[in-house]
Amino acid sequence: MLIASIDRRRIDTMSTTPTIDVPAGLNGVIAAETAIGAVHGDEGFFHYGAYDAAELARTRTFEEVWFLVRSGHLPDADELAEFRSAVATHRHVPPELLDTIRVVAAAGASSLSKLRAVLSATAGFDPVIDIDVATRREQALRLVAMVPSVLAALHRLEHGQPIVEPDPGLGHAAAYLHEVTGAVPTPVAARAVEQYLILTLDHGFNASTFTARVAASTGASVADSVCSALGSLAGPLHGGAPSRALDALDAIGSPANAAGWVRAEMEAGRKIMGFGHAVYRAPDPRSALLREVAERLGGELVERAIAIEAEILVTLAELKPGRPLPSNVEFYAGVVMQSAGLPPAMFTPTFAVSRTAGWCAHIVEQAAADKLIRPSSRYVGPPVQ
Amino acid sequence: MLIASIDRRRIDTMSTTPTIDVPAGLNGVIAAETAIGAVHGDEGFFHYGAYDAAELARTRTFEEVWFLVRSGHLPDADELAEFRSAVATHRHVPPELLDTIRVVAAAGASSLSKLRAVLSATAGFDPVIDIDVATRREQALRLVAMVPSVLAALHRLEHGQPIVEPDPGLGHAAAYLHEVTGAVPTPVAARAVEQYLILTLDHGFNASTFTARVAASTGASVADSVCSALGSLAGPLHGGAPSRALDALDAIGSPANAAGWVRAEMEAGRKIMGFGHAVYRAPDPRSALLREVAERLGGELVERAIAIEAEILVTLAELKPGRPLPSNVEFYAGVVMQSAGLPPAMFTPTFAVSRTAGWCAHIVEQAAADKLIRPSSRYVGPPVQ
Repeated sequence: MLIASIDRRRIDTMSTTPTIDVPAGLNGVIAAETAIGAVHGDEGFFHYGAYDAAELARTRTFEEVWFLVRSGHLPDADELAEFRSAVATHRHVPPELLDTIRVVAAAGASSLSKLRAVLSATAGFDPVIDIDVATRREQALRLVAMVPSVLAALHRLEHGQPIVEPDPGLGHAAAYLHEVTGAVPTPVAARAVEQYLILTLDHGFNASTFTARVAASTGASVADSVCSALGSLAGPLHGGAPSRALDALDAIGSPANAAGWVRAEMEAGRKIMGFGHAVYRAPDPRSALLREVAERLGGELVERAIAIEAEILVTLAELKPGRPLPSNVEFYAGVVMQSAGLPPAMFTPTFAVSRTAGWCAHIVEQAAADKLIRPSSRYVGPPVQ
Repeated sequence: MLIASIDRRRIDTMSTTPTIDVPAGLNGVIAAETAIGAVHGDEGFFHYGAYDAAELARTRTFEEVWFLVRSGHLPDADELAEFRSAVATHRHVPPELLDTIRVVAAAGASSLSKLRAVLSATAGFDPVIDIDVATRREQALRLVAMVPSVLAALHRLEHGQPIVEPDPGLGHAAAYLHEVTGAVPTPVAARAVEQYLILTLDHGFNASTFTARVAASTGASVADSVCSALGSLAGPLHGGAPSRALDALDAIGSPANAAGWVRAEMEAGRKIMGFGHAVYRAPDPRSALLREVAERLGGELVERAIAIEAEILVTLAELKPGRPLPSNVEFYAGVVMQSAGLPPAMFTPTFAVSRTAGWCAHIVEQAAADKLIRPSSRYVGPPVQ
């Protein structure tokens, strides 16, 4: 029996199409169309719908931007009031999940795994054939609204602290900070975290967003698709682990040590966490804005981070001339979160708080496209006997 | 600001490559190479490594085939004895998971969601940067070995029955049946389920396998990647829901009603569950073998299913001339499982028992390739203001 690559297609496509060779990792391959946003790496620019994402982070609330990626337009005052009210209704730990959360909080798994455990034990998200877009959108709202509360509850129970009831008078970011720390945050701290959340809500077809869309293309539920995305977000190659860059700041200590530290890391063949990005050649717009946010928060850590960033950029330019390695979103993310009062254990969960909103917009969009994403493979094993 | 599609690539690929247009759903696009197996739809043939999969199901045990997809070759007697012993060591519910399983069993989520909840609460699977292949293989063995026990425990607790301790003297399929039903199965029933498990262990780049590989490409752990795959398996477009075809047999009742039922379903615009496949033009080799397995089990249901299948095929050929709609793996899967003593609620979980072994082989292979799978998207929303 000869082995040849076989194409696979929907039963309604009767013609035999040849297999298509593309670059490894599907790099550059257009896997789907989206109206949610895009990244322009050469220009150091990304946008949600019709709006510059950094500009949205400067001027808008998380709820407004979340509404934008859900609906394609920014809300007017009435729409925003209605949306904030709907979010507040779901921004809590559903009582029927308390037993699950208590058991899961005590498990030794990672924070993202624990979130996935709780979402997986949540009823009412099961897939339904021909579920309509409105129902998916409602499920997405409910899930995104409850995720911060679930993450905060898992964190507090793990550390022997009682769950904090959400304050319906607070915005999404402030309510989350309150639920994590137990204290109503200062407006500056709440706004800093809100700006981080807006900047990390979505970012093109990163691996976790693509995973969410592959799952959604099967007709899987919003919760199933989010759980699929969480698996990819956990991967070290995905990026977005803000605690790593903060660990580097700790290891460096004083700015005077930065150049030597970078040389030693690169000689050891390690990447410099917080610098370089798969897409950006120009400076990462998220990094630039997060530095501003950090400066507003102030403090010793912020001053040190700014001085160390400058030293690292100079050293990298010396060691890798012609290779753009701008600071990325990770570099200031940990600095901002730490300065706003979030413990390092909550850095990655906080990334999940915002990215879940982005995933859900993609999930609803992909499900509406009603087209299974299913590429082919090439068999390279031993010939069939 | 002009909107143009931007390619995305690894930081180590410095040249700007253009975006690449491909058929919708990545149909026919080679997303990765694999030595695990392939499907030849036009020939009605699929294989694992060097071996015809249907022939393996006729002649081998599940453990032998599982070893094959893990290792690339069939085990010799010593290797098989060692492998069976290693599997038996892990074929149980880890005691530290009992509290989680009790809570999750009572949740209202789907069976696949519950499995994902338990796997997500399991410690010891967290991703590690530069984890070696041997560690991933060991994690995969542990996970695949425990999945049947977790599924059986969830099912029994949900129905108020005590967990059945696995019998280390039984093979994987027989042990699973025993843990689900509480009775040691007849050899014929155990072998029937074993053959179903072998036939459904792997099947090319279906959507859940591709999802597992996307997650694994980020460096996510084996458990994270399996949880990602479970999201896609839940989707109605994924296929592989054996209870639907059995529901159709119930609805039809007597073979004399089959032709009328098919006409009514097609006039209502519904698909005929159990017939047609995305890949196969020729008869699905899984269906042919499962009919043989069903005949060996015998009984009224089997006789009726065979008579109804013949009627449906004749009617479909009349209604859709020139369009191949052979019976697929779903048609006899439910008949076999029901006749072997599995309750319908365990049909989809049983599919997960075998497919988890296939996913894990793909996860280990993809992780070893160390290449992020990250395609591009095309922005089609409103122009940036």
